[in-house]
Amino acid sequence: MNPDQICTDIHTLGEAKISSPLIKSTGARFSKRFITDQRRVLIQTETEKVMDKSITVEDMPSFERAGPREKIFFDPSKVKCAITTCGGLCPGLNDIIRSIVLELYHCYKVKNIYGIRYGLEGFIPEYGHDLMDLNPGSVSGIQDMGGTILGSSRGAQDISLVVDCLERMNIGILFMVGGDGTLIASKMIAEEIEARNLKISIVGIPKTIDNDIHLVSKSFGFDTAVDVATNAIKGAHNESEAYPNGVGLIKLMGRHSGFLAATTALAQQDANFVLIPEIDIDLYGENGFLSGLEKRIMQRKHAVIIVAEGAGQNYFDSREKEYDASGNLKLRDIGIFLREKIIEWFEQKNMQLSLKYIDPSYMIRSLPANANDSVFCGLLGRDAVHAGMAGKTKLLISFWNNNYVHIPMDASAGMRKYVDPNGKLWQSVLEATGQQDFFIPGEPKT
Amino acid sequence: MNPDQICTDIHTLGEAKISSPLIKSTGARFSKRFITDQRRVLIQTETEKVMDKSITVEDMPSFERAGPREKIFFDPSKVKCAITTCGGLCPGLNDIIRSIVLELYHCYKVKNIYGIRYGLEGFIPEYGHDLMDLNPGSVSGIQDMGGTILGSSRGAQDISLVVDCLERMNIGILFMVGGDGTLIASKMIAEEIEARNLKISIVGIPKTIDNDIHLVSKSFGFDTAVDVATNAIKGAHNESEAYPNGVGLIKLMGRHSGFLAATTALAQQDANFVLIPEIDIDLYGENGFLSGLEKRIMQRKHAVIIVAEGAGQNYFDSREKEYDASGNLKLRDIGIFLREKIIEWFEQKNMQLSLKYIDPSYMIRSLPANANDSVFCGLLGRDAVHAGMAGKTKLLISFWNNNYVHIPMDASAGMRKYVDPNGKLWQSVLEATGQQDFFIPGEPKT
Amino acid sequence: MNPDQICTDIHTLGEAKISSPLIKSTGARFSKRFITDQRRVLIQTETEKVMDKSITVEDMPSFERAGPREKIFFDPSKVKCAITTCGGLCPGLNDIIRSIVLELYHCYKVKNIYGIRYGLEGFIPEYGHDLMDLNPGSVSGIQDMGGTILGSSRGAQDISLVVDCLERMNIGILFMVGGDGTLIASKMIAEEIEARNLKISIVGIPKTIDNDIHLVSKSFGFDTAVDVATNAIKGAHNESEAYPNGVGLIKLMGRHSGFLAATTALAQQDANFVLIPEIDIDLYGENGFLSGLEKRIMQRKHAVIIVAEGAGQNYFDSREKEYDASGNLKLRDIGIFLREKIIEWFEQKNMQLSLKYIDPSYMIRSLPANANDSVFCGLLGRDAVHAGMAGKTKLLISFWNNNYVHIPMDASAGMRKYVDPNGKLWQSVLEATGQQDFFIPGEPKT
Amino acid sequence: MNPDQICTDIHTLGEAKISSPLIKSTGARFSKRFITDQRRVLIQTETEKVMDKSITVEDMPSFERAGPREKIFFDPSKVKCAITTCGGLCPGLNDIIRSIVLELYHCYKVKNIYGIRYGLEGFIPEYGHDLMDLNPGSVSGIQDMGGTILGSSRGAQDISLVVDCLERMNIGILFMVGGDGTLIASKMIAEEIEARNLKISIVGIPKTIDNDIHLVSKSFGFDTAVDVATNAIKGAHNESEAYPNGVGLIKLMGRHSGFLAATTALAQQDANFVLIPEIDIDLYGENGFLSGLEKRIMQRKHAVIIVAEGAGQNYFDSREKEYDASGNLKLRDIGIFLREKIIEWFEQKNMQLSLKYIDPSYMIRSLPANANDSVFCGLLGRDAVHAGMAGKTKLLISFWNNNYVHIPMDASAGMRKYVDPNGKLWQSVLEATGQQDFFIPGEPKT
Repeated sequence: MNPDQICTDIHTLGEAKISSPLIKSTGARFSKRFITDQRRVLIQTETEKVMDKSITVEDMPSFERAGPREKIFFDPSKVKCAITTCGGLCPGLNDIIRSIVLELYHCYKVKNIYGIRYGLEGFIPEYGHDLMDLNPGSVSGIQDMGGTILGSSRGAQDISLVVDCLERMNIGILFMVGGDGTLIASKMIAEEIEARNLKISIVGIPKTIDNDIHLVSKSFGFDTAVDVATNAIKGAHNESEAYPNGVGLIKLMGRHSGFLAATTALAQQDANFVLIPEIDIDLYGENGFLSGLEKRIMQRKHAVIIVAEGAGQNYFDSREKEYDASGNLKLRDIGIFLREKIIEWFEQKNMQLSLKYIDPSYMIRSLPANANDSVFCGLLGRDAVHAGMAGKTKLLISFWNNNYVHIPMDASAGMRKYVDPNGKLWQSVLEATGQQDFFIPGEPKT
Repeated sequence: MNPDQICTDIHTLGEAKISSPLIKSTGARFSKRFITDQRRVLIQTETEKVMDKSITVEDMPSFERAGPREKIFFDPSKVKCAITTCGGLCPGLNDIIRSIVLELYHCYKVKNIYGIRYGLEGFIPEYGHDLMDLNPGSVSGIQDMGGTILGSSRGAQDISLVVDCLERMNIGILFMVGGDGTLIASKMIAEEIEARNLKISIVGIPKTIDNDIHLVSKSFGFDTAVDVATNAIKGAHNESEAYPNGVGLIKLMGRHSGFLAATTALAQQDANFVLIPEIDIDLYGENGFLSGLEKRIMQRKHAVIIVAEGAGQNYFDSREKEYDASGNLKLRDIGIFLREKIIEWFEQKNMQLSLKYIDPSYMIRSLPANANDSVFCGLLGRDAVHAGMAGKTKLLISFWNNNYVHIPMDASAGMRKYVDPNGKLWQSVLEATGQQDFFIPGEPKT
Repeated sequence: MNPDQICTDIHTLGEAKISSPLIKSTGARFSKRFITDQRRVLIQTETEKVMDKSITVEDMPSFERAGPREKIFFDPSKVKCAITTCGGLCPGLNDIIRSIVLELYHCYKVKNIYGIRYGLEGFIPEYGHDLMDLNPGSVSGIQDMGGTILGSSRGAQDISLVVDCLERMNIGILFMVGGDGTLIASKMIAEEIEARNLKISIVGIPKTIDNDIHLVSKSFGFDTAVDVATNAIKGAHNESEAYPNGVGLIKLMGRHSGFLAATTALAQQDANFVLIPEIDIDLYGENGFLSGLEKRIMQRKHAVIIVAEGAGQNYFDSREKEYDASGNLKLRDIGIFLREKIIEWFEQKNMQLSLKYIDPSYMIRSLPANANDSVFCGLLGRDAVHAGMAGKTKLLISFWNNNYVHIPMDASAGMRKYVDPNGKLWQSVLEATGQQDFFIPGEPKT
Repeated sequence: MNPDQICTDIHTLGEAKISSPLIKSTGARFSKRFITDQRRVLIQTETEKVMDKSITVEDMPSFERAGPREKIFFDPSKVKCAITTCGGLCPGLNDIIRSIVLELYHCYKVKNIYGIRYGLEGFIPEYGHDLMDLNPGSVSGIQDMGGTILGSSRGAQDISLVVDCLERMNIGILFMVGGDGTLIASKMIAEEIEARNLKISIVGIPKTIDNDIHLVSKSFGFDTAVDVATNAIKGAHNESEAYPNGVGLIKLMGRHSGFLAATTALAQQDANFVLIPEIDIDLYGENGFLSGLEKRIMQRKHAVIIVAEGAGQNYFDSREKEYDASGNLKLRDIGIFLREKIIEWFEQKNMQLSLKYIDPSYMIRSLPANANDSVFCGLLGRDAVHAGMAGKTKLLISFWNNNYVHIPMDASAGMRKYVDPNGKLWQSVLEATGQQDFFIPGEPKT
C-alpha cells in the first residue's frame, strides 16, 4: 500500500442543507458530537512506512471520519431506504440490519425502510422475491439469531436492472452488506447511478469472515469466528492426544488470506502446523511439511494441523481453474487433499496413524455474533446511516486506526489484505507452533 | 426385551468380610446409607409390558442397586486398581476417571491407582505404552478438558495377554470404560480371570454417544452431545433460510440407533426430515424422501435434514461389508451419499439448490461434559468403585428406572437398544417435523 | 410417600367420542402409538419400599401414561385454548408455550389459542392486561429467549373471577404452567369449574427450579440451572484460590429443598461445604460449620461454600415469619447472614480473609433452556395437549420412572419433595466435599 | 492528553550486545522481523487533535514499537525471570503467564522462571508464601481456567523489601501484571532498582477490567467481560419483560470509568438507562433519572438499567471517604442505593414494581479469557519477554493505534482514561437507549 496514492475523497450527491433531527432528539450537548468532514484520521501511523519524514500532518493522507453530520441531504420524512445482504453468511449480519433500522427509525425518524431479499437477486423481477418491511418490530430479537433475515445469494446480476429497480422503488439510500464481489458490484451500481444522474446513495459495509479486505483493519464477524474456530481446535487437539499417533486436521476459512487460521492458532497455542494461502508449501521435500509432521509424530505422538482453505493451491493444476457463481475462483479442497496425502505418507512408512478431519466452516459462519461483534456491527450500521443521510455515496464504512472512517469504494473494491510473512502475526504463529520453515524457497507470494 | 429371562445375578469374587472405611469417614449417620444386595429395582415399570399381571413383586425381575456396601472384599491398604478407556471419544471420560480416583483415594484410602494408556493396547507389551500414576493431583482439573487423559484405541487385543498383564501388575480391580466392543472384551477378560481362578474384579462402565446400549436407559455424554448437535442444527437452519431453496444437511452420530438424531430434532424443532437406521428409507419413490424434500422446497423454500450415520444402509451394496479395527461394520457414508443424490435430483428438475453439508461428529465427541453429564459421570464412577471394592465382578454400572444398578455383563454385552418406531420419541419427531411417511413399506427393522 | 394411598385416578369431562385427527396426519402406522388409559407406570420401583412383597402387579399403585388418545373429547374445529405462566421465571417456559401451540395448531388443527398475560392477573379485568394471539408465527424463535413471552406474576387471585373469565372467553382447555402456589390455584379453579358444571379442562405443568414438587421426578429447567450454577461455582473457586485465605460463598435457589445446591456440588466437585434446608446447621459449635471452615482454611488456604437460600432458617427468629405475594414464607437471606458471620468469626480469630459472595439466581432463572430441557419441555407440552384434548382435567403432566404420566392434582398439589439425608444424592455430596458432620444433632427435618 | 508532552523514551539497563537466539530458532527469514528502536507508532492519528498542522512526521510524538530485538541484554542461559499478578482477577491472567513462560522457555531457552505467589505479598518474607517453578508443563492447560495460578493480593508492600527479595533471588527480569496501584508500585520498584544500581528489568502489563488505563487503548479481559456482562443484561431484560412494571437493575464494574457499562449497553441494545461515573446524575429532579424511569414504565411497562459501580458517587457524603487495602477509594454501593431509591419512588407513587437486582461482577472477572482475549494476552506476554530480554525497563506493554508499543511507566502510571461524554461511545449509548439528558447541569467531570 502506498498511502500517498490512496484516493480518500468521498463522493456526495449534493449539498447537505437540512438540519439533522439528531439535534433535537438528544439535547443540547449533542451538538458537540457532530463530525465535520474536516476531522480526519491519518492512514499511516507506523513511521517507518512514511518515506519522507519531513512531510507535515497537513499533507499526510488521511480518511474522513464517520459519524453524524450537522446538515443532512435527505429529508427524513420522505426518503426511502433499502438494505441488502449478499454472499456467504457471516456472524453479525442481523446486528447490522437491526442497527441500520433502529438508527433510521428512532434517531432520523425515517419510516420507509425495505429489506431486499436474497441479495442482488431481490432486485431482479424474474426471481419474484418479495420485499420485507423493516421496522423496530420486525428486527426485534434478530441479533440473537445467526444468518440474515433478508436472505442472501451469490452471483452477479445485471447492474442496469438493479438500478432500474432502485429508480422504480424510489430508493434514496441503499445499504449493501457484502464481500469482495459485492463491493465491486456496489461500485458499478454507484457508477450507473452517476451516469443516470440519480440521487441515490450507495453505502457499503464490508463483510468478510476471512478479514481480507483492503483498508479494513478488522471486519465484523471475525472475532466470533476466532472464538468458535478455537473450539474446533480444542476438539482436534483432544482427538489427537487421545490416540497413538493421533493427528487432528482442521480446515478453516481463508480463500486468499490466512488471518483466521493464523489468529486461531494463537488462541489456544495447541496447533503444531499452520498452512496459509500466502506461502506455497513444500509438501514432499526433505524439509517439507510431511516430513516435518512425521518428525513431530515420532517425538510427541500427536499433532494438530490448521489449514486455510486457500492454502496449497500450488498443488492443484492451474489449467483447471473454475469460478463459482459469484465469480470467485473455485478452490480445490485442500483439506481432503491433505488428508489423503498424510494417510498415504504414513502408510508408506508403515506407521500407525489416527487422523481426524474437521471442517467447521458452516457451523462458524451461521452463528450469531458474539457481544463484541454485536457492538462493532451496531456502530458500523449507525455510521452507515449517518453517511447515507448526509448524502455521501460510493463509500465503505471501515474501522481504521481505532476510528470509524469513510473509504471511497475506488480505494478498496477489488483489493485484498494479506498476512505478512515477516509481520508480527505470522512470526508469532511460528513461535507458538514451533513449526519449521518447510516452505517452498523463493519469496512469499504477497 | 423379555424381562423374565434377563440374568440379574451379579458375580462376586468371594465373601466381603472387611468393614468399609466409609463408616469412619463420614460419621455415624452414614451407616444408614449402605446398600444391601437385597435392595433392588424393578426392571419393568410399564404394566402393559408385564404379561402376567398376577405375578407378585417378589417374583418380578429386578436389578441389584448400586452403592456402597457395609462389608467389602478388598483390603484398601493393599489393593491395586487400574482404569482404562477404550473406543471413540465421548464427553465425560475424564469425569469418570476423576471420580473413580477421588472415591478410591479419599473415601476408600486406596493409594495404588494406575491408568492404562490407549485402551487395550496399554496391556500389550509390544506397544510399549507407559503407565500413568493416578491420584488427586493428576486428575485435578481434567473434568474441564475433553477427550481422555489416558488415551484410547480401537480394536481387539489378545485377551490372554491382557490377563497376563493384570496378573503381572497384581491388579485387584480393573475399571473398563467403553462401548459395545469393549464390553464384549471385558466379559471375555472376566471369563479368562474366572478360568485362571484369579481374584480380579472387572467393572464396566458403558460408553456410547449413540445411547444404544441394552439395559442402559441413558449413557453418559449423550446429554452433552444433544446440546452441541443442537447448535449444528441451528447453523444448518440459518444456512438453509438464508438462500433461495436452501437445504441444510447434518450428519449426526448413530451407527445402529437414531437416538441422537431423533432427540436433537426435538430440541429446536427446526428440522424437517430425520432419517434413522431403524427405518429403511424409500429414496426415489413417488412418496419417497427426495420427492418429499422437493415438495417442501416448493412450498417453503428451505429445509433442514438430519441423518444418522447408520441410516439408509439399504442403499449400499451388502456384498461389500467391511469391518474396522474394533470389529464394527464399516458404514458407507450416508451423508456424502445423500448430498450427491439430492443435488442430482434437483439438477434433473432444473431447480435452484443451495445445499450445505455439516458433519459435526468430531467436534461433539471431543468436548468436555456439560454439568449434567459431569454429575452423572461422577455418580457412575463412584458406584463402580463401590461395586469393585465389594468384590463384585463381571458387571456394568447402569442407570435404570431412575436408579443406579448393577447389570451382569451377560445380560447386556453385545445387545443393542433401538428407537421404537411406534414409541413416544419417534412419534414426537414425526409430529415436530411433520415429515410424511415415505419409508419403505414393510415392518421396521427392530 | 406411601404409594398405596396415592390417588391415581384422573378426572375427565365426559366421554371422548371424536376420532383424533392425529390418525390422518401421520399415516397408518400411527395407530400403534395411541395410548390407552390402561397403559400404566408403576409408581414404586425400589422393591424395599414395597412393604408387602406378595402383592401382584395388578394391585400395585400406578400412574396413567400420558400421550395421544385415539378418541378425543373436544372438537378441534371449535375448541378455544388458553395458556398461562405463573410465578418465578424458569428456563423452558417459552419452549412449553411453543410446544403447546405447535401441537394444537399443526397436529390437532386447533386455531384459537390465546396467551393469558402476566399469570393469574391476566384473568382479572381490573388489571387490564391484553390477550395474546398464539400461532406458529407468534411462537417462532421464542425457544431461544429466556423468560416467558406471556409474562408472569406472583400472588393469588380470586378464583371465582378466574373462572368467570374462562366462561366469558369460552375456553375449553386451560394450560397452567407454574409452581407450588399455582398448582394449588389450578386445583381450586378445577374444583370451581366442577361446581359450576362447566366443560373446561385444567392441565397443569409443574414448574420449579428447585425441583421440589412431589411425584415429579425431574422438573423442567433444573438441568439448565445446574449447568449455569456450575459456572458460578467455577468462578467462586477461582476467586477463592486466587487470594490467601480465599473463600467463595455462593447462594443458590432452593427454598425448602436443596436439590440444586447438592447437584451442582457434584458437577465440578470443587465445593467444600454445602448447606441445604433439609438439615439444621450447627454454626458456632466445636464441630460446627464455622469451626470446620476455619480448619479447612488453615489446612488448604481456600474454601468454596454453596448455600441453598432456604438453609439455616433455624438461625432466624420464627416469630417474624412473613409471607410474599404468592403466599410463600419470606425467607431471611441466609447468604448475607453467613457472609457476616464468617467475616466476624475470622476477625475474632485475627485471621486474614478474602470472601467473595456470589448470588447468581436471577441470571439462572432468566436464561433460555439448554437443549435437554428444550426436548423435555417439548414433550411435556405435547402431552399436556393430548391430555386436554382427551377431556382429562385436574391433572399434572409429570415425568416419573422414565415415563410421562398423568398425576391427579389431588395427589401432588401442596406437597413437596426433599433431599433425603441418607440417600445417594446427599451422601455423594458428603463424599465429594469431604465435609464433616457439623449438623445439629437430632433427626433431619424431612 | 497533550501528546507533545508525553514522555516516550524507554529506559534500558545497558547496551544489548548478545545476539538473539530467535535468529537460529526460526530460520533465515526471521531476521526481517526484528524490530529496531527506530520503528515507531504515531500517538495521535486524529488530525483535529494535532494543533499545529505544519509539524512534520519526524517531530510528531510516537511510541517505540514492541517486538523482538536482534541484540539482547540478558544471557538466556543465566538470566532468572519472575512473574507476579496483583490486584483483582481479570480474564486472561493465566494466558499471559503461559505466554511469558512459553516464549522464555521455547524461544529464548531461558530455564529459570519463577512464579511469585499472591502478588506483592510473595516478595515479603513474613507472609511465608512459597515460590512456584514455571515451565511448559506447569502452565499446560492453564489458559482454560479462570483466575491466576500464581494467586494475587491487594495492598501496598514495602518497596525496599521487594527489591531486597529480587536481589536475593538474583532476578534479571520481573514481569508485573496489575492495575493502577500495581503500576505505581512497579514504577517505584524500578526507581529503587535504579537507586541501587541493579541490573533488573521491570516490565509491566497493564490489567484493568474497567479498561481505564491511560495510553492503553484496550486492556486484556475487557472483551470477555463484555461478552459475559451481555448475558447478565439479557437476563435482566427477560426478568423485566416478564412482570408488570418490571425493572432489571444490573451493576457492572467501572470504578472511575464507564467503558464496560457503556460498551455492554451497545451489544444487545436492550438497556434503557446507563449510568456511568463520568457524569453526575440528577436523581430526583423533574427531568431526573427517577422521573425518567417512571415515564418509561408508564409507557412501556418495563425497563433495564445498567449502572457502573462508580456512578452516582455525588450522592454519597464525601466526608466519609474510605480506602481499601490497595489504596483505592472505597466506593459506596450505588447498586444497593439505587435499588432502594427506585423502590421508594414507586411506593410513594403507589405504583406496582417488580425490581430484580443483578450483580455479576465476581462471575465475570473469574472467568477464563475468550479466544480473542487469549490471542491478545499471548501477544502481550511475548512482547513483554522481548522487551525484558532486550534490557528495557520501567515500561508497559500497550496496544495503541493497532500496534503493540512500549510506554514509559512515567507516562501512564497513575493516570486514567475516561468515557468522553461527547465522543462516539457515549453518544451511541444515548442513541441506543434513547435515554433523556437527566444529568446534573454543568460540565461533565472529565
